[in-house]
Formats: sequence, C-alpha cells, structure tokens
Amino acid sequence: MSQRTEIASLGEFGLIEHLTKNIDIKNSSTLLGVGDDGAVIDHFGRQTVVSSDLLIEGIHFDLSYTPLKHLGYKSVIVNLSDIYAMNAVPTQILLNIGFSNRFSLEALDEFYTGVYAACEAYNVDLIGGDTSTSQKGFIISVTAIGEAAPDSFVKRSGAQVNDLICVSGELGSAFLGLTLLEREKRIFEETGAQPDLEGQSHIVGRLLKPEARKDIVEYFSEAGIIPTSMIDISDGLSSDLLHICKASQTGCVLYEDKFPFNEEAKAFAYKLEIDPTACALSGGEDYELLFTVSQDEYEKIKTNPSISIIGYISPENEGKHLITRAGNKHELIAQGWNHGKK
Amino acid sequence: MSQRTEIASLGEFGLIEHLTKNIDIKNSSTLLGVGDDGAVIDHFGRQTVVSSDLLIEGIHFDLSYTPLKHLGYKSVIVNLSDIYAMNAVPTQILLNIGFSNRFSLEALDEFYTGVYAACEAYNVDLIGGDTSTSQKGFIISVTAIGEAAPDSFVKRSGAQVNDLICVSGELGSAFLGLTLLEREKRIFEETGAQPDLEGQSHIVGRLLKPEARKDIVEYFSEAGIIPTSMIDISDGLSSDLLHICKASQTGCVLYEDKFPFNEEAKAFAYKLEIDPTACALSGGEDYELLFTVSQDEYEKIKTNPSISIIGYISPENEGKHLITRAGNKHELIAQGWNHGKK
Repeated sequence: MSQRTEIASLGEFGLIEHLTKNIDIKNSSTLLGVGDDGAVIDHFGRQTVVSSDLLIEGIHFDLSYTPLKHLGYKSVIVNLSDIYAMNAVPTQILLNIGFSNRFSLEALDEFYTGVYAACEAYNVDLIGGDTSTSQKGFIISVTAIGEAAPDSFVKRSGAQVNDLICVSGELGSAFLGLTLLEREKRIFEETGAQPDLEGQSHIVGRLLKPEARKDIVEYFSEAGIIPTSMIDISDGLSSDLLHICKASQTGCVLYEDKFPFNEEAKAFAYKLEIDPTACALSGGEDYELLFTVSQDEYEKIKTNPSISIIGYISPENEGKHLITRAGNKHELIAQGWNHGKK
Repeated sequence: MSQRTEIASLGEFGLIEHLTKNIDIKNSSTLLGVGDDGAVIDHFGRQTVVSSDLLIEGIHFDLSYTPLKHLGYKSVIVNLSDIYAMNAVPTQILLNIGFSNRFSLEALDEFYTGVYAACEAYNVDLIGGDTSTSQKGFIISVTAIGEAAPDSFVKRSGAQVNDLICVSGELGSAFLGLTLLEREKRIFEETGAQPDLEGQSHIVGRLLKPEARKDIVEYFSEAGIIPTSMIDISDGLSSDLLHICKASQTGCVLYEDKFPFNEEAKAFAYKLEIDPTACALSGGEDYELLFTVSQDEYEKIKTNPSISIIGYISPENEGKHLITRAGNKHELIAQGWNHGKK
C-alpha cells in the first residue's frame, strides 16, 4: 500500500473495469455478470435479472429541493429502469437505507410512501433490506430483481452494423429540471427569494419523479421485437450510446434533427441559452431506453409514437458521429461531441 | 410533517415493523417477504433466497483497526450467513460501494482482494453493483442471492414446543475481540502505546474475519435434517432467539452450562472480569447458526461436534428463560437477561 493512485485518474467506468477484471465465474447459473445494466441468473430455464444501485445524499440528490416522497419513488424507478433495459420485467426489490439522527420517523414515512407508490405503479414487491443509522446524510441502496423469458434478455453488446438506433420518450428534460432547481436554490441562498417554478412543472417532474419505460418493454413483447442491444439513459445519450458501441464493437451515426424533445423543455433551454442537443447528449437522468433493432423491425418501430429512430449503427472503423441540423459531422465523445470536426 | 417522532423511540426492529406493516404482496413468485434473514422467490419450483445489508464506516466498522482486506471478506460473509440461515446455498452477490476521496485505488484493491477471497472460499460469483463517491466515509451494500431446494428453506417462524434449541460453533468470542480492539485503540490514543494482541489472535480473528456456517447447512442436507426454524446470530443469542420465539409464538428455556465457548476466549473474559455468558447472550457478530429441530433429530444432531444443544422450545405462556449454572431461573430479554428473578 505504499503507492497511492487517485481514483479520479481512472474515472467511474475505468474503476469498475479495474476492480472486476479478474472475475472468474464459478456458478453455471450465472449467465451474465458485471458490465451491463443488470446481471442474469438462470433458474431452470427461466431467467432472473438483478441490478443494484447506491444513492448518496449530496452526491446523487439534494434534499433542499427533493421531497422525500419523490426521492423514495425515484430510488425504486432508477433500479426498475435497469431491469427494463435488460428487456425483463421487475418483480421484487430490496431496499437498504442509512440515515443520521436528523431524520424523524415522519420523514422516513414520507420516503417509504414514495417507495410503495413506485412498487404499486410497477407491480413490484418490496421483499427485504436493512435499516441503519449513518454518520452523515441519507444513504439508499436498492436491488431490483426481474424475470426474462428464456434467452430474451438484451445486453449492451449485440448491436450489428446497419441496425437502427432508437430511443423512447424525450431527451434532456431532466437535465433542464436540474439546471432550473440548482439556479433557484442559488437565488434563494443569495437573496432569500422563493423559487419560481411557474410553468416548468414538466422539466422539474422529469428530474424529481421520473418513470421507467415499462410500456416499451411491454410493446416489444406484444410486437415480437427483441432489440439487438439496449441500455437505459442515466448518464446522457452520448455516454450511454458509447457503452453500446464499445460493448458491440461498432461505430454509430446520430442525426440531431431526429432527437425527441419536449416543447416546453426546448423553450426553457432557449430561454437559458442552452442548446437542447447538448442537454440530450450529456444531461443524463432521462431514464429512457436506448436500443438498437434490425432494420427488419422498421415498420413495427415506426408505429409506436413513443419511439424515435435517431440514427444507425456503423462499422467500428468508421467512428462515432453526430450529424447536426446544418449537416456538419462531429465526433461523439462521452461528454457530448467534439466541435469543429467536419 | 408537523410531528416529529424520534426513530430511537421505536428501536431498529420496531422501525422495520412500522415501515413494512402495510406491504401487500403482488407477485405470486414472492414466497416470503420482509421479516426473515432472507426473502424467498419462486422460480418455477426452484427457490431463490435473497438478502441485503448495509455497512457504514463509523457505525458498523472502524478502519483504525480493521484491515480493508478483512472488511471486504467480512462484508461478503455477513450476507452469505443470512442465506445459510435460510437453509439455502449462496450463489451470487452484488456489491455497491461508496467512498470519499481519502481512499486510493490501492485501498479499494485491498478491499476487493478480501471480497474475491470470500467469493472464492464460498464459491460465489460477484455479478454486479455500483461504485460511487461519498461525502464521508466508506459505505458498503451487499446483496446475496442463493438457491434452496423446493420448500426446504427455513424461516424463523417454524419452532414447535419441545423442539431442541441448537447453535453452531462458539458464542461470544467476536464481542471479546471487539472489546480488546476498542481497549487497545483507547490506550493507543491516550498513551501512544502499540496494541498488545499477544495470544489473542482467536478472538480478534472472530471479529475481523468471521466465517459463515456453510458446513452446517451442508450437514443438514447430507443428514436429511430440515430445522424447524433458523436465524444467524448477528445481534447476540438473546436477541436472535427472541426473534425465533416471537415469530414462532413460543417460549424457550436455555441452559447456561450448555453454551459453547472457546477456551482462549473464556480465559480472556475472566481476565477482563466479564462474564462469558453475557458475551454470548448480548455480544453479537458471532455469525453462528441458531436453529431448532424436532427431538426426533437428536441422534443426528449430537454426532456433529460443531453443534451444541443449548435448550428447548416451551409454550409461549411459560415465558423465555435462562437456567444458570447455579440452577437459578432468569427471564431472557433482548439485552441478555433479567437478574434477580427466581
């Protein structure tokens, strides 16, 4: 332990790769391990998908503008979203919480009201977990369990050249909600002025009370679609699409003019002089599904109004690119895109 | 939220009961939910057992005397112990960690070395999880998944009147290890004197590097024993046996002279003028299995040198009691026992 390497030098994904690179799978029931939205376990043909996340006050959420009920709801949703991103249906969750003595029983009740509301809305059972005190702040760990029909789970690694790149819902709104709330918090701290969220309930709701795309996975099942790859958008379209490209060893081409935006969100972005495309690419927390399908599925995909086709998968050696509205070609990077490249 | 109820007024178990009292199970695959060491999910006949725990620096462990490698090992073990306490075999774990910037990559590597050593020793796969920064300290959340043969999982609620109360291994040693380490830490802080752990490696090892009782669950399987109830001892014999009695609606009688102690641990207890029985009843962190079996299993149980029969289950209206070596009868309470009652 004489050496000291700062963890920041690896980045989050580099760290996970480093810590898990020597894993040697011992149980034949382990079908898929570390490195996707969820892991997959075989249970005599039927397949179980599991995912777990840690949410820490001051890192993942700010209680100065996050109602505890919404936080409870969102804590469940972000995990269910990972299960849906595996093309599976969530069935159970386990919830561990740690809290300092500034939290009252009434505060925990608020939080659990949100947790149970999410369980109710998504037909999921809370089956266990742990409560503990913490030295500082509120700590939440949720593990979600789901089911997939035999070999119908979808990894990040199956995208094929010429597959369509599709996304559910809208992009960038949660980031705009965060920007608004952070701005109002700053104004309140500096001037004491009450927050002005007038007319911005959509973007605020997208951040504080997101939903998971149960409907999309149900549509896949009804329409007989199995995406070739899928991920949920938690870190922004760029970063998450690059995960798919890396795992699938492909390139990609995105069309800015195909990005789905909410009109209210777009208007707010222009008001703040922020580019909505930047919000979509780098914002994160959208919890929409990003997936690829074979071109054969085009007819089925285009009939679903909640799905937008935003690009296609290209060979790895052609790189990863965004074609802007003006027709310019930019290299896609995890933080968004590289300007100036033709 | 105008009312404020301090959580301490409910206690940990009261809090869990309060937060989970309105749970309404929605999935038929949920065979057993909150309230036992693990939850049970049906997967087409084969049954999956799941358990999750949160470990927080300053609350559950003290890094001033806990090597990170041991902490990694123990974090896995305490969860595997819950799976064994359901009479199931652990197969996979998910691990979430949060850490402040005082942790280097080398420190995390140490921690993971312990995690992987435990996975190796217990034939378990690490299949997922999350890494995050924290505002303060080290936070660990482990979820363990295991398998049970159809309807062979064991709950806390099945103990019957006249069943034998049994425990694996030894009791109280981990608490003595904690007492020693806390004492040496205090001495070091006050005087700068280096810790003197001479001859105490057993009790220190019991605290810092516990094992889960894989062997006992394997013995049950070989010998064709299914305990009527089971729990792992994390909070002390008293508290954990009272969980069984409460869930099973029974009383119990324990015999002090049957408690299994390690000789080195006992000698250390006498040196500190602590009653070893008190350590067994209230110490906790033994991670031994406490279980009840029908008297018909007596012959099979007594041939296993790792199992001690320490009492029997009585009717609920006869209360919960400890018979001391001197033949006195004391009421068993969660903190140990009530003196002075004849």
